[in-house]
Amino acid sequence: MHARRPVLSVIGSSGVLPDDVHAMAKSLGRAAVDAGFRVASGGRDGVMAAVSEGARGSDAWTEGTIVGVLPSYDSHEANAYVDIVIPTGLGFARNTLVVAMADVVVAVAGASGTLSEMALAWQLKKPVIALASTGGWAARLAGERLDDRLSRPVRTATDPAHAIELALSAI
Amino acid sequence: MHARRPVLSVIGSSGVLPDDVHAMAKSLGRAAVDAGFRVASGGRDGVMAAVSEGARGSDAWTEGTIVGVLPSYDSHEANAYVDIVIPTGLGFARNTLVVAMADVVVAVAGASGTLSEMALAWQLKKPVIALASTGGWAARLAGERLDDRLSRPVRTATDPAHAIELALSAI
Amino acid sequence: MHARRPVLSVIGSSGVLPDDVHAMAKSLGRAAVDAGFRVASGGRDGVMAAVSEGARGSDAWTEGTIVGVLPSYDSHEANAYVDIVIPTGLGFARNTLVVAMADVVVAVAGASGTLSEMALAWQLKKPVIALASTGGWAARLAGERLDDRLSRPVRTATDPAHAIELALSAI
Amino acid sequence: MHARRPVLSVIGSSGVLPDDVHAMAKSLGRAAVDAGFRVASGGRDGVMAAVSEGARGSDAWTEGTIVGVLPSYDSHEANAYVDIVIPTGLGFARNTLVVAMADVVVAVAGASGTLSEMALAWQLKKPVIALASTGGWAARLAGERLDDRLSRPVRTATDPAHAIELALSAI
Repeated sequence: MHARRPVLSVIGSSGVLPDDVHAMAKSLGRAAVDAGFRVASGGRDGVMAAVSEGARGSDAWTEGTIVGVLPSYDSHEANAYVDIVIPTGLGFARNTLVVAMADVVVAVAGASGTLSEMALAWQLKKPVIALASTGGWAARLAGERLDDRLSRPVRTATDPAHAIELALSAI
Repeated sequence: MHARRPVLSVIGSSGVLPDDVHAMAKSLGRAAVDAGFRVASGGRDGVMAAVSEGARGSDAWTEGTIVGVLPSYDSHEANAYVDIVIPTGLGFARNTLVVAMADVVVAVAGASGTLSEMALAWQLKKPVIALASTGGWAARLAGERLDDRLSRPVRTATDPAHAIELALSAI
Repeated sequence: MHARRPVLSVIGSSGVLPDDVHAMAKSLGRAAVDAGFRVASGGRDGVMAAVSEGARGSDAWTEGTIVGVLPSYDSHEANAYVDIVIPTGLGFARNTLVVAMADVVVAVAGASGTLSEMALAWQLKKPVIALASTGGWAARLAGERLDDRLSRPVRTATDPAHAIELALSAI
Repeated sequence: MHARRPVLSVIGSSGVLPDDVHAMAKSLGRAAVDAGFRVASGGRDGVMAAVSEGARGSDAWTEGTIVGVLPSYDSHEANAYVDIVIPTGLGFARNTLVVAMADVVVAVAGASGTLSEMALAWQLKKPVIALASTGGWAARLAGERLDDRLSRPVRTATDPAHAIELALSAI
């Protein structure tokens, strides 16, 4: 691994979250920054906002720690916790960028957008970790292999601390 | 539906195919053109080549019927049956374009790339049909809903003729 | 050159055109198809519509001759003459695709969007021809080299027939 | 302007630079960070490396100040001074992202790639400043309007300090 700060990209549901998923995403963001990661996401609401909020709350946070990769050109669509907005204007093609910039990817809950990102991460041979207890595609694909390209499956994390432990061992 | 020729995008495995999958993809391409569709794909080998070959063999084929949307800038990467090459240079982000140009999407077998395209098609609210007997992600997601965005699941086609029947009813 | 029909991409002003520019773009589209080219453009109004309209009027037109590469996901933004819509959803990044799919590029009038496409075409080492009498960036860059990457300048065409003559010699 | 650190994107020549251009780009990067900007670029060599090196040398530098937006998926293509690599895999379409993330754009020397970025920045209505004494497209377009979309021309900066002064007044 080069000397740059490693990037952990979090992918997951947009919109309103169940309380426990919100809490888990927030813990994950905080723990990621505590562990030395930069945190990237799609920059919007739901899991993206919760993980950014958590990252912002870490004592290890410094300006520039939190990246949001938006589908539109409008920086105002980023949640308030994002330090660096990448307004791509690429629509759904921005999903590729969220995972391409990652050293490791963590999925939290997640609908079809998250599924596309898990698949793209796999194509790009990035390690993918799923917070299985959050439901959605994270739960559906935890422990699964998406194809024969990689020998390791999507790894199953039982909680945010476990996800970070797996992330550290993956980079 | 506008007066333009409708586009059926086929997504599926690259590389060497089992004989039966090759035959099904080829039949699918031919039947799609017979039914009046333009056929689009990722333009390369495997299912993409088989479906293009089949499309080329239809009596209804005319020059311009078969589109291939490549990840690279190199038109020579397109299979020999593609009439119109779109060399995007976008890498994996080209997956988005394959489904964005579709009126309806059909999945044949398929690894993680196909999975990303099924998920992106769903995000774009395109009808998705899976040739379930071909295995891969087509089989794994046939009959499934990818999230709550759409009420209809990925439709299950038993053979190429059935897939085209479903495609015609979906547009 | 492979056996595929060569693609001539026309780049130029959007919006309402002066009558003479409209007429030139229309002639250019028709002459391009007469000469055996497929015609691609950004698919919208202005020069893009005029060249597509001209292409549609050629006796050599067949369905599939005219391609429009849109910035949005909305096929309805394509002008009525486009046969094949590529709704990219990529915003301004679609400019790259318009020229990447070309064997040769012709500029007609043109504002900053056209300028970006001339520059991207040059980066991709595509031959660029400018209809100099139409004004805009076509006029400003006719005869100029954009950098040292290519030895030939942007070629100056005096009228549509001349542009097609230059295009045929460039492929 | 929102509370986020404003982003100054520098566009310019790749490859080996004349000594004076290298020195100017380096000064520009340092002055930008001194003035409170985050510095973004295409992340590679030439002006991109010089401006990143200068930014790294500012006393106001903190980890996360310097962003590099690469055309490939390969983070190792980034120069050594970049803190945050965005490996887009988008080829030349990444040019759009370099300027889309900017609050203000500064051009230094520059070949056709820089020209495309100046044009794309203009389309996105970003203020563009040219370090005119560095030659290339910065010199050719300093003081020019690229079309009628904006009333202000590309602003002419006489030296790096002047460029930063213009940048601060533009955001």
